[in-house]
Amino acid sequence: MCAESKDRVYPVPSIRRLPLYLSFLRQLREQKVEVVSSTRIAEELGLTGIQVRKDLAMTGIVGRPKIGHSINELVSHIECFLGWDKSRPAFLVGVGHLGTALLGYKGFKQENLDIVASFDSDPEKIGKTILGRPTYPVSEFSQKAKEMNVQCAILTVPAQFAQATADMMVEAGIVGIWNFAPVQLFVPDSVIVENVSLSSSYAVLSQRLTQI
Amino acid sequence: MCAESKDRVYPVPSIRRLPLYLSFLRQLREQKVEVVSSTRIAEELGLTGIQVRKDLAMTGIVGRPKIGHSINELVSHIECFLGWDKSRPAFLVGVGHLGTALLGYKGFKQENLDIVASFDSDPEKIGKTILGRPTYPVSEFSQKAKEMNVQCAILTVPAQFAQATADMMVEAGIVGIWNFAPVQLFVPDSVIVENVSLSSSYAVLSQRLTQI
Repeated sequence: MCAESKDRVYPVPSIRRLPLYLSFLRQLREQKVEVVSSTRIAEELGLTGIQVRKDLAMTGIVGRPKIGHSINELVSHIECFLGWDKSRPAFLVGVGHLGTALLGYKGFKQENLDIVASFDSDPEKIGKTILGRPTYPVSEFSQKAKEMNVQCAILTVPAQFAQATADMMVEAGIVGIWNFAPVQLFVPDSVIVENVSLSSSYAVLSQRLTQI
Repeated sequence: MCAESKDRVYPVPSIRRLPLYLSFLRQLREQKVEVVSSTRIAEELGLTGIQVRKDLAMTGIVGRPKIGHSINELVSHIECFLGWDKSRPAFLVGVGHLGTALLGYKGFKQENLDIVASFDSDPEKIGKTILGRPTYPVSEFSQKAKEMNVQCAILTVPAQFAQATADMMVEAGIVGIWNFAPVQLFVPDSVIVENVSLSSSYAVLSQRLTQI
């Protein structure tokens, strides 16, 4: 069903906006609304109509001027495009404050991201079930990744251990790393890294606050 | 000391890279290194020399070809540019898993971000000290903001309460909001919002994984 091409690189800002659309569309659906125009989406989300039409077209949705889009159709196209129509198992490495927060984050359910196990090097944590997930020693990562057929990992270890952890993940066959450590990871080209840098985000806010 | 102009809008990607530089420079300083070239910084961080020189120039640092930069000078220029040379008090609203993770996040110390109090509407949390900070009822936000002269707030409430919480923050005189809720906030132009969207970040990773 997805119109996505394997070779095409889609614009990151557009991809980043899709979850906002989904959240708005789901709200409408709860209110029993069945059809919505790109103009209405644009207004509600503070975007331009052109942006919205381009973003939606990227997912393979065909525009229907004056009629509007079926909300169910929009939702399934976007979910399919993002790979959120199927459950994706993932491991989490580093069960500190941030790792625990991610284990408890309810938003992942809607994204079909399923953190199936976590890993830590702290003997106090190993063997415990934290927020419903078993905690294994980091040394068992590779074996468990094969057993459970996991290809996606969340990295929430302190900065100084981040590269070594990423190397270990790559060795274990992980192809997608969601990196929360404030470092630039070096990985083979075939591995996808997406960084969430709290420092970088706060830097933007803080710098702009100095200009007030 | 900062060379920053009040009216200039600096490029966001450059600002986002500055914490990476800082982290690398601090590592070098620990190793008693005193001078570094932009070429070396570029190599270590996987960037181009031109990018690094442009980013550093933005902070008002004057290049010294062949000699390299004093690390102490670089660190203080970057910290000053980002407003990390002075402590910034902030409030956090929404002491759920993510809010608690941020209260416990040690990285903020280096950024001089000081979360001085948190707010929640849950009677079970109000009055408690969570990770060293008092938890007040949301109804006291405005009064406490005035008393403690706080102008920056971290928003970690569930999506459906995010806009109302932002409105309340703006009313209380907050001028900078660090938003972790997965919604687009509408605020007056004078208020700065920086979004950390886990959904948007995971969308980028997940979409690219569908193409493998």
